[in-house]
Amino acid sequence: MELLKQRILTDGVVLPGGILRVDSFLNHQMDIDLINEIGKEFKRLFGNEKVDKIFTIEASGIGIACIVAQYFKVPVVFAKKAKSKNLIGDVYSAEVKSFTKGNSNTIMVCKDYIKKGENILVIDDFLAKGNALIGLTNILKQAQANIVGCGICVEKAFQNGGETVRNMGIRVESLAKIKSMSDDSLVFED
Amino acid sequence: MELLKQRILTDGVVLPGGILRVDSFLNHQMDIDLINEIGKEFKRLFGNEKVDKIFTIEASGIGIACIVAQYFKVPVVFAKKAKSKNLIGDVYSAEVKSFTKGNSNTIMVCKDYIKKGENILVIDDFLAKGNALIGLTNILKQAQANIVGCGICVEKAFQNGGETVRNMGIRVESLAKIKSMSDDSLVFED
Repeated sequence: MELLKQRILTDGVVLPGGILRVDSFLNHQMDIDLINEIGKEFKRLFGNEKVDKIFTIEASGIGIACIVAQYFKVPVVFAKKAKSKNLIGDVYSAEVKSFTKGNSNTIMVCKDYIKKGENILVIDDFLAKGNALIGLTNILKQAQANIVGCGICVEKAFQNGGETVRNMGIRVESLAKIKSMSDDSLVFED
Repeated sequence: MELLKQRILTDGVVLPGGILRVDSFLNHQMDIDLINEIGKEFKRLFGNEKVDKIFTIEASGIGIACIVAQYFKVPVVFAKKAKSKNLIGDVYSAEVKSFTKGNSNTIMVCKDYIKKGENILVIDDFLAKGNALIGLTNILKQAQANIVGCGICVEKAFQNGGETVRNMGIRVESLAKIKSMSDDSLVFED
């Protein structure tokens, strides 16, 4: 998606350790117009599929998922990272290690909200080592839901998470796929 | 807002300890059509004010804020709960105690994204004891931004957070204001 790639080149910041900061427009401050264009692009890519729900993980995936969901006219369900008093009853859970935060979380979803046979499109802002995505697809398998595919805004292809998930037979569409990244260059895959 | 009140009566679940679970439509599974109606209602309430940005807190506020922001045609900024490697540089921070999770968090926002003199509308899903809202307004005061007001989906008026924030001279508009709540009854304020 050319618009997103250009925005990454203009406003993205590469930090030491393979970190790309896009928080001026995607995951801290959020440019809602850009995210609507992202929604249209995911609709173009997955528009021929039956999608019953959009599934994502807190926190930064939620806003993007909600905007995207408008183009599919379906609800959003987001996996939670910590068990709160409000989340009671049977849950599906999976372990997820965070690359950027350096810790590990149990993510969970109330069993009422992902049902057997539902067609689920997973949406997230970033795909690096694939831990979040593997956790989410793990939950969908537990629920016996159908994984339509994964729509990712920014994939850091050099960290191999996308390869891992695609090798599981899951369709992954990334709007900006970064081949390599250093202090003074950022190269997208074609 | 009648639509939201009716939905709470139909699908909300009251749990022991003054907890209202609305996670089938508002903050775990999210009914995007309903949240669009919420966006229209906040636009009706705050439409005469100059709003430069919508400000919220992760996690469940983000999706609602993003949908609401479309009606104001402005970006969203969300306060983060944990410092990640991606959040570098100068930040504003405040302490927030969570009623539902029973813990305390430092919330923070990159100084680049809330600027002096900006007109900020705060959006959140819940207002109970007001801790999140007080933390967010604390950050806005540090930034010397103008607080247009706070738009809340569900206020538990019996927990007095709304009174506390209103007594600070801040406009708070809640779409469903709960006067009292028990296992077998839920009463809204007029």
